[in-house]
Amino acid sequence: MVKSEQLYEGKAKKIYSVSSSDDLVWVEFKNSLTAFNGEKKAEMINKGRFNCHITSILFKWLEKKGINSHFHERVSDIEMVCQKVKIIPLEVVVRNILAGSTAKKFRIEEGSPLEQPLVEFYYKDDSLGDPFISDEQAIMLKAVNNVEQLSVLKQKALEVNIILKKIFEDIGIDLIDFKLEFGLDSKGEILLADEITPDTCRLWDKKTGERMDKDRFRRDMGQVMEFYEDVFQRLKTFEEKNK
Amino acid sequence: MVKSEQLYEGKAKKIYSVSSSDDLVWVEFKNSLTAFNGEKKAEMINKGRFNCHITSILFKWLEKKGINSHFHERVSDIEMVCQKVKIIPLEVVVRNILAGSTAKKFRIEEGSPLEQPLVEFYYKDDSLGDPFISDEQAIMLKAVNNVEQLSVLKQKALEVNIILKKIFEDIGIDLIDFKLEFGLDSKGEILLADEITPDTCRLWDKKTGERMDKDRFRRDMGQVMEFYEDVFQRLKTFEEKNK
Repeated sequence: MVKSEQLYEGKAKKIYSVSSSDDLVWVEFKNSLTAFNGEKKAEMINKGRFNCHITSILFKWLEKKGINSHFHERVSDIEMVCQKVKIIPLEVVVRNILAGSTAKKFRIEEGSPLEQPLVEFYYKDDSLGDPFISDEQAIMLKAVNNVEQLSVLKQKALEVNIILKKIFEDIGIDLIDFKLEFGLDSKGEILLADEITPDTCRLWDKKTGERMDKDRFRRDMGQVMEFYEDVFQRLKTFEEKNK
Repeated sequence: MVKSEQLYEGKAKKIYSVSSSDDLVWVEFKNSLTAFNGEKKAEMINKGRFNCHITSILFKWLEKKGINSHFHERVSDIEMVCQKVKIIPLEVVVRNILAGSTAKKFRIEEGSPLEQPLVEFYYKDDSLGDPFISDEQAIMLKAVNNVEQLSVLKQKALEVNIILKKIFEDIGIDLIDFKLEFGLDSKGEILLADEITPDTCRLWDKKTGERMDKDRFRRDMGQVMEFYEDVFQRLKTFEEKNK
């Protein structure tokens, strides 16, 4: 397999074609960190490496537990080869504990536990600021083809939540919330895609309550990469223990 | 029946108890007009009268077509007697044509027709600015007791839409969108409640395209009461023709 021309550059990753295959893409994690719809930006050494490793470990573990994703293999410290998919333009957010925009919207204190996990859809459109939308609006916008696809997304997101909560529990971290993206493969099957990293999750240390995720960057709390590395190291230990 | 002490004063109506009955309330329409969560205010002579008559005509017609509401009878030009209900804290919006906040949110031109009516929920809480919410958030906030109640609200709202669209069609008006509120009676039955008026609907004249609703006030277009009166007169003629 050979990395070929660049197809797309996002805020955190670049996507390349793979010369030998139309079905695969080559994903490179960047060191850029952005927040607030790209308004706040920074470069952080090793960020691409931590996120590439974290995503690989999590996608491999999810696969083992029955959740198919676009992930094929990690090919370097910052690169992975994935199934080519057509990304569904929805950010699927699962919340176990209220924090971030939804806590703010309802003026509920951050850290309030939810009786059951809350699934939310945000419409992926930077120019609109990725607005929160309802099922009916997702259908109106043709983000998906039908209501059944929305049900599949919710169901898969909740299954992923159960698995991720257990891993993080095991390594002493509370999984507060996270964002998933899904894509359609050439057969029209819905696959988990994108990444799962401290960029896309809220992770709070069980003992200290310390934030171990992008909120450190959003809120200028410092030691951003120290905590990303901590998440990576704990996951690596978990993976080695559970081979 | 005698109007008794005031129970509540809202932005557009006052609610009184009825001395002879615990099951009824006395609703008085005010002349106040407010917009943008109460930030813009005015008093308009006859507004209470037009809205009381319009609501009465519409609730009576809906009753005839099988939609139960809290409405019992109109007792003066500005007053009606209604079933006492516990208001469900959701604004149920039905859109036939995109306009207002949802058009703005997705930067879709006002006046764009929808393939099918869009039902939306907004959480009734002035201090939060009545935010747009999903079904899952409505459950989280305990705005309703269960998912089935949300389905009932959506179903009833769509039924009301079909009936209202026909009336307005008949009097030369396009029903662009409208907001409903529902309440629970003492038996726990869901009843249509509140009001249906140019305050709570977008109504565009079929021939001229002129706005005949509160947008005239929101957008400083003038002749607000002239158009409210026009809506009232057309509905009165409709009612007399269809006795």
